[in-house]
Amino acid sequence: MPGVIKADIAGATGYAGQELVDLLLRHPNVRINALYSTTDQPRKFSEMFPRFARRTGLLCQKLDAKKITHGESSVVFLALPHTCSMDLVPALLRAGKRVVDLGADYRLKSVPAYEKAYGVPHKDRDNLRQAVYGLPELYRQKIRKAQIVANPGCYPTACVLGLAPLVSLQEFDSVIVDAKSGVSGAGKKAVQDMLFTEVDEDFRAYKVNSHQHMPEIEQELSKLAGRRTQITFVPHLLPVKRGILETIYVGAPVRPSKVLELYRKFYTHEPFIRIREDGSFPSIKDVEGTNFCDIGVKADGSSVIVISAIDNLLKGASGQAVQNMNIMFGFPETMGLM
Amino acid sequence: MPGVIKADIAGATGYAGQELVDLLLRHPNVRINALYSTTDQPRKFSEMFPRFARRTGLLCQKLDAKKITHGESSVVFLALPHTCSMDLVPALLRAGKRVVDLGADYRLKSVPAYEKAYGVPHKDRDNLRQAVYGLPELYRQKIRKAQIVANPGCYPTACVLGLAPLVSLQEFDSVIVDAKSGVSGAGKKAVQDMLFTEVDEDFRAYKVNSHQHMPEIEQELSKLAGRRTQITFVPHLLPVKRGILETIYVGAPVRPSKVLELYRKFYTHEPFIRIREDGSFPSIKDVEGTNFCDIGVKADGSSVIVISAIDNLLKGASGQAVQNMNIMFGFPETMGLM
Amino acid sequence: MPGVIKADIAGATGYAGQELVDLLLRHPNVRINALYSTTDQPRKFSEMFPRFARRTGLLCQKLDAKKITHGESSVVFLALPHTCSMDLVPALLRAGKRVVDLGADYRLKSVPAYEKAYGVPHKDRDNLRQAVYGLPELYRQKIRKAQIVANPGCYPTACVLGLAPLVSLQEFDSVIVDAKSGVSGAGKKAVQDMLFTEVDEDFRAYKVNSHQHMPEIEQELSKLAGRRTQITFVPHLLPVKRGILETIYVGAPVRPSKVLELYRKFYTHEPFIRIREDGSFPSIKDVEGTNFCDIGVKADGSSVIVISAIDNLLKGASGQAVQNMNIMFGFPETMGLM
Amino acid sequence: MPGVIKADIAGATGYAGQELVDLLLRHPNVRINALYSTTDQPRKFSEMFPRFARRTGLLCQKLDAKKITHGESSVVFLALPHTCSMDLVPALLRAGKRVVDLGADYRLKSVPAYEKAYGVPHKDRDNLRQAVYGLPELYRQKIRKAQIVANPGCYPTACVLGLAPLVSLQEFDSVIVDAKSGVSGAGKKAVQDMLFTEVDEDFRAYKVNSHQHMPEIEQELSKLAGRRTQITFVPHLLPVKRGILETIYVGAPVRPSKVLELYRKFYTHEPFIRIREDGSFPSIKDVEGTNFCDIGVKADGSSVIVISAIDNLLKGASGQAVQNMNIMFGFPETMGLM
Repeated sequence: MPGVIKADIAGATGYAGQELVDLLLRHPNVRINALYSTTDQPRKFSEMFPRFARRTGLLCQKLDAKKITHGESSVVFLALPHTCSMDLVPALLRAGKRVVDLGADYRLKSVPAYEKAYGVPHKDRDNLRQAVYGLPELYRQKIRKAQIVANPGCYPTACVLGLAPLVSLQEFDSVIVDAKSGVSGAGKKAVQDMLFTEVDEDFRAYKVNSHQHMPEIEQELSKLAGRRTQITFVPHLLPVKRGILETIYVGAPVRPSKVLELYRKFYTHEPFIRIREDGSFPSIKDVEGTNFCDIGVKADGSSVIVISAIDNLLKGASGQAVQNMNIMFGFPETMGLM
Repeated sequence: MPGVIKADIAGATGYAGQELVDLLLRHPNVRINALYSTTDQPRKFSEMFPRFARRTGLLCQKLDAKKITHGESSVVFLALPHTCSMDLVPALLRAGKRVVDLGADYRLKSVPAYEKAYGVPHKDRDNLRQAVYGLPELYRQKIRKAQIVANPGCYPTACVLGLAPLVSLQEFDSVIVDAKSGVSGAGKKAVQDMLFTEVDEDFRAYKVNSHQHMPEIEQELSKLAGRRTQITFVPHLLPVKRGILETIYVGAPVRPSKVLELYRKFYTHEPFIRIREDGSFPSIKDVEGTNFCDIGVKADGSSVIVISAIDNLLKGASGQAVQNMNIMFGFPETMGLM
Repeated sequence: MPGVIKADIAGATGYAGQELVDLLLRHPNVRINALYSTTDQPRKFSEMFPRFARRTGLLCQKLDAKKITHGESSVVFLALPHTCSMDLVPALLRAGKRVVDLGADYRLKSVPAYEKAYGVPHKDRDNLRQAVYGLPELYRQKIRKAQIVANPGCYPTACVLGLAPLVSLQEFDSVIVDAKSGVSGAGKKAVQDMLFTEVDEDFRAYKVNSHQHMPEIEQELSKLAGRRTQITFVPHLLPVKRGILETIYVGAPVRPSKVLELYRKFYTHEPFIRIREDGSFPSIKDVEGTNFCDIGVKADGSSVIVISAIDNLLKGASGQAVQNMNIMFGFPETMGLM
Repeated sequence: MPGVIKADIAGATGYAGQELVDLLLRHPNVRINALYSTTDQPRKFSEMFPRFARRTGLLCQKLDAKKITHGESSVVFLALPHTCSMDLVPALLRAGKRVVDLGADYRLKSVPAYEKAYGVPHKDRDNLRQAVYGLPELYRQKIRKAQIVANPGCYPTACVLGLAPLVSLQEFDSVIVDAKSGVSGAGKKAVQDMLFTEVDEDFRAYKVNSHQHMPEIEQELSKLAGRRTQITFVPHLLPVKRGILETIYVGAPVRPSKVLELYRKFYTHEPFIRIREDGSFPSIKDVEGTNFCDIGVKADGSSVIVISAIDNLLKGASGQAVQNMNIMFGFPETMGLM
């Protein structure tokens, strides 16, 4: 096992960024080298977030492409708004950094799909080709050697992990994903719709069958199924701070007594996947604060109900990013995550 | 229009009961005659619930079958735990009272279905036959003359109203109901699972495809479709006090441009149904504190997504009960509800 | 009693404004003439807030000083950000309108106190002099004839009502007000600090002993006490949407057995003040959605604890504004508020 | 530093118990030997609480005095309802165990005070005498050698730490503690008042100036002040799961410019006390999930406002218990807590 490495975080003040700081501070083999933010002025990180007082004295600096490129870190985490990563990645890779990108820029292999979903041209097709989709349970070998890992979206993580055993191994037709997410999924930007007064005691669907994570999910399910796969996808906003729970309805002729076995076998050696007992389903609090994806399944012979839960800021973002880093640098996969 | 009537409420201290007291206090043509509770000792209602101070000085009495049967009220509302109503109803009807039952005892026409869902024998088959299912939008004429009205369950209200135009008028195959309810749906009983500490910041499915409201929904959809109809039904517990939102997925070949028209026509004259504009969907707060059922729809040619929202304590319970009473006694249907 | 009057609301889309629309729609003697907003484009009010669908078809217009001044309303409610009212009031009064201002511009009689608290010069000293502080329980006679009423702040309403019997009739020394408010007190502006993710599961003090409502409270207590009175005031932000609860500690030699009597006598005929029984104290939910101020008191001989609760959007804003309007126009004081 | 020790937890299924399991699982020098519960049947802990799956396979057993007394653990944590500990402690101490009691039985040195506050006779006066009050910042030396440590109550921890510098070193007169606690402070028992529907969107005071933690606070302040000290204490219930924030008002002639220095000096070497900068005050989220006590102070020459925040389940219960254990067994005080 290699020694201690240095890490930079760009976008350290967002919700995923703060979690990443928290995780890396506790990681025995990582030392945080520098923290960067796009919006905030240089300031001690622990002053911006008093809960970090006594834990880090690091300064959070204004994001500076040159500084981060020529810094001494081996790994750079990008937790930036969509479309920002592709401005930084080319230089970082040329400088020999390894990158874990928590944004969306390197997830979709199809440039038109990206441009349709995010409404901007893609500026870095070269590196897009070599980027590895960072879902360790499916692509561990490639992640090991990747120079750039595209950390999956939060909804796709819960969905693809929840469906992988089925779509890889079974006939299936329709896939309906009824997804519910906590508010931190929307980021820390001041938006009226996300005010406490607008969210508390409310529940609503949004981007009904038109969310930008749909093509990402469909890309991954299509790869697993070996054929073009489309889904119905309705995300909803939960009045909770963190966590995603997806209830997934699949038309598939799976024998009720076999479905658990199918899932258990598929994920036998996975440290972060927990399949629930028969008749038991996960709730958000079972995974809150952890890097686990908990999955419950129930089949009736012609269809399967899958319930998949993650912490959107951990397995759905920063926890998975650290898991990817562990794989890339040869650390035990669960290091700093248990 | 007839004059003022007197009303009794049995089960006045539960969440639905309190709402009913609140509604009837404001109803211009009703005077509350007596309040009864099964669990609490005789006490001034406004002492039990200080928010009613200055609004009612009524005593809440221990439920007493004789007293309520021989009292002077024309209408009796039963907001009691399941299986309690059938002990009271026969005597009430014999005494000439008209009854609105907010419990489940008179909703399912099939006795075996009732006994399976609620785990007890049905004791009042005679009156079950004459009971009218109290969904005014579908059964207004029968409600007018009914002596006993079975007020629908909260989940079925949102679901059946959300699906009625489709299943009455269209071919359809699968129906999947992903339902989310606020905690008041579970009642006021002290249960560990419903503690603030267990519910807040959490979200979970429960009774996956096995909830007691399923046969009720299937009974109503079957009537509307003219054929036996089964559904997939997964209820979830939301960390909100009140409100239900159901996201419903129907396999149905409806032209995208026609679906809104279908819904608008079906509900043209309904005072409590509001169909949302194209691309807009209801949220819980749109209906909170009201007797409305708000519905949004979206079709893609082979399937339809319906989102239906109600306040579970009003359109899903006490508001609908008052709406039924208004119909039964010849009052304007919206009286006391706007 | 006079007939129906017409009313305009400037600032109809904020939280207090929406409540005001809701109250006036239900008021038997008021017809809403026009709704204005400073920030939003002209649009049907019920499209902006779907919960108003079927209840009002009114357009919400861009605020226009001329239009509102020359409109046909007898009363204009101003629910605008601080410092906006004084730009409108002079013309409105010249045009013979009667004004209820929910903002802060006409509450502080001392211009230097105003300028210190709100950081801007006062532009309308003439009308400031004639403005009546709209706390009906203390100034009912003056409100009756007022052309402009300064509706009190939310914290001052709970505090002054909670202390009036004591400070008017008793010796007292120190007054400490530990105040807690729901988030709607901060308005509807998109501010990072008020995001759901920042507020939920948190609780914090803010503007410790430096809140702009302090001079307003001190002005009123000084008037009641007949001497300059200062307080200690620490407001806190509660993770609830609405409601204020203040726990007030007063050094005052009141006999424990006499304190309730003192309060009850002082408020004997007040329709919106409810004094709790001995040993009982109000909670926010007792007053939520009402125009009541509930007060509980406990004395130990040398000091008194007062707990005062209101709904900040009703008795602390729009409910009190309607109560003031009722007084101004000779309607029963509780009309539309019970 | 000694090697790994074994620990038992009695009361492992309550909220404090679960936190303790979580902390000890991560503690490098502790191995959990056995988990006991008074109410639940023997069952795998990770089945009772799925979030512990993959982390512990331990069985949670029915509490058995003999088993725990003759077990092989060196330390026993008692996280039991009040009055249960004194039934177990005598035997445990005779068997040579060291005990950290999270309950109230050994906190009050005055037996009459205990009996008045908890309404039962004290059964173990012998061990009460030798029990050490487990506030490490004040009694570290005694804790080191204690056989039984009485872990402080949650309110007293925040209050005594918030006041210790003042009351030890300054003249002061009145002390008013306005305390606010999250719901987990009430434990996991099914109680109607603690249902989500009763707590959410509400805020209320309870046990106004009569809470059982008052004598505990007064005992500790009196020791520090060297004279009998009484307080005014009003606890309130916050709609949050965890956390305590206390706003404390002290009559004390401290110079505004000196007060921070006073606090910083007093707590110079304390790893878990963080004094906020001038003008800054802690919020609950700053300490949530940590063992810190964050304190902000402001003086005006004649009085001081202190705001003190802790996580009631950590510094207010299980975190402090582990801190005490670390001291007792010669481990670094912050081990397993950072």
